[in-house]
Amino acid sequence: MNELRILITNDDGIMSPGISILVKYLKRVTREIIVVAPDIERSATGHAITIRTPLWIKEVSVNNEFLGYAVNGTPADCVKLAIHALSKGKIDLVISGINRGANLGTDILYSGTVSGALEGALMEKPSIAVSSTDSDNPNFESAAEFVINFLRIFDVKNLPRFTALNINVPAMPYNEIKGWRITKQSKRRYSDYFEARKDPFGNTYYWMLGEIIEDDPSEDSDYMAVKSGYVSITPISVFLTDQKLFEYLKEVERTWH
Amino acid sequence: MNELRILITNDDGIMSPGISILVKYLKRVTREIIVVAPDIERSATGHAITIRTPLWIKEVSVNNEFLGYAVNGTPADCVKLAIHALSKGKIDLVISGINRGANLGTDILYSGTVSGALEGALMEKPSIAVSSTDSDNPNFESAAEFVINFLRIFDVKNLPRFTALNINVPAMPYNEIKGWRITKQSKRRYSDYFEARKDPFGNTYYWMLGEIIEDDPSEDSDYMAVKSGYVSITPISVFLTDQKLFEYLKEVERTWH
Repeated sequence: MNELRILITNDDGIMSPGISILVKYLKRVTREIIVVAPDIERSATGHAITIRTPLWIKEVSVNNEFLGYAVNGTPADCVKLAIHALSKGKIDLVISGINRGANLGTDILYSGTVSGALEGALMEKPSIAVSSTDSDNPNFESAAEFVINFLRIFDVKNLPRFTALNINVPAMPYNEIKGWRITKQSKRRYSDYFEARKDPFGNTYYWMLGEIIEDDPSEDSDYMAVKSGYVSITPISVFLTDQKLFEYLKEVERTWH
Repeated sequence: MNELRILITNDDGIMSPGISILVKYLKRVTREIIVVAPDIERSATGHAITIRTPLWIKEVSVNNEFLGYAVNGTPADCVKLAIHALSKGKIDLVISGINRGANLGTDILYSGTVSGALEGALMEKPSIAVSSTDSDNPNFESAAEFVINFLRIFDVKNLPRFTALNINVPAMPYNEIKGWRITKQSKRRYSDYFEARKDPFGNTYYWMLGEIIEDDPSEDSDYMAVKSGYVSITPISVFLTDQKLFEYLKEVERTWH
């Protein structure tokens, strides 16, 4: 594993402690790390990319600990730039994170962190998204500890093309974590509502708010693993085809034609 | 079908002809249409949502043909606002489009149009994304004609929860289209590269460019349907779990524990 060349990105921005703690831990197991991350927070940007404006790259020193590249773009932009314009050699692994807060259930669709890993998967690189599940009190150390231990036992070259792992580590001390479970993306989602306010000129504007809906208590569900004190590891794909609906509609197609 | 209450959004912006032509055609088959779309173009925004700033809604007359709501947000924001803050009654169907240009293969991940439909699916509404496949010479009329004919033969209530249809209509006259095929999201993707330039102050900036890779010529592939003159209809899901990798890792998990 010493020879893994690792690209790190995130959606909280290059100055987030989630990156610097991950770098500190990864240095124990590999020598080649390149950090390319958004210059500012880009949470909830989904899989956005920048196509109408150019991208700027700025070399920055992060806490005097390491040099990284700050980009005025999204996590997906950072991965593209890192692989095609910045990395002198091949990238062996893309890690997006450590995110401040969980990416469970339908969060996956909105998450810039997960899209960083999906972009790596699109580029046919083994890719992992990592989140510490409490946005108010993240435990980046225990998430970073999990990542290096996981890389010691799991050979990332075994990840098939166009797939990635979405890892959520409970925000608790490492020795209190019960273990890890391979899980499925649950239907954990939000019941949204909007708070309407008036601006000083009498116009209405809206703040989006939401309550979490957790109604998927199966053993394999991502959020149930985390709630039970386990790391959740969900294998995800860049392909969204619904296989069951595909087969049903193929039947329908035959009757219509 | 006369009773379907249809929400329309897109990512090209409320003033795009893709919306006004779709509205004109849909009026033939339903009386209740609400248009809630981004105030400006939001292409390639993926499934971004707006969480750090409030949203503004402005009622606008589009070409003096209909009233719609323009929002300073993404397609996903528009769907949330439409369902939770604007629509007085229930929405029976969300249509995102008609997009100017194809959304095939891995475009699905970047597409604001598709994310509008996926947001509808998350809200448990039957949802459809529609694109006319040529961004330089779209044929919105033939795509709109296909939509109303499809709605006549297919009851959208048959779409399972959390799924949507991604429809790509070849940009050609309606009577030249050969038919339609149920397809899978192909691995059509881009080989990206960056063009570096210097600004007047000597700093380097980058434009992202890409060449399409089409190496998935199976009968079921979305782009092959379109290339052969057929409408491509791909059933998609908000769940990204890779079932095959899940099963493999579950096996690995058993040996490790």
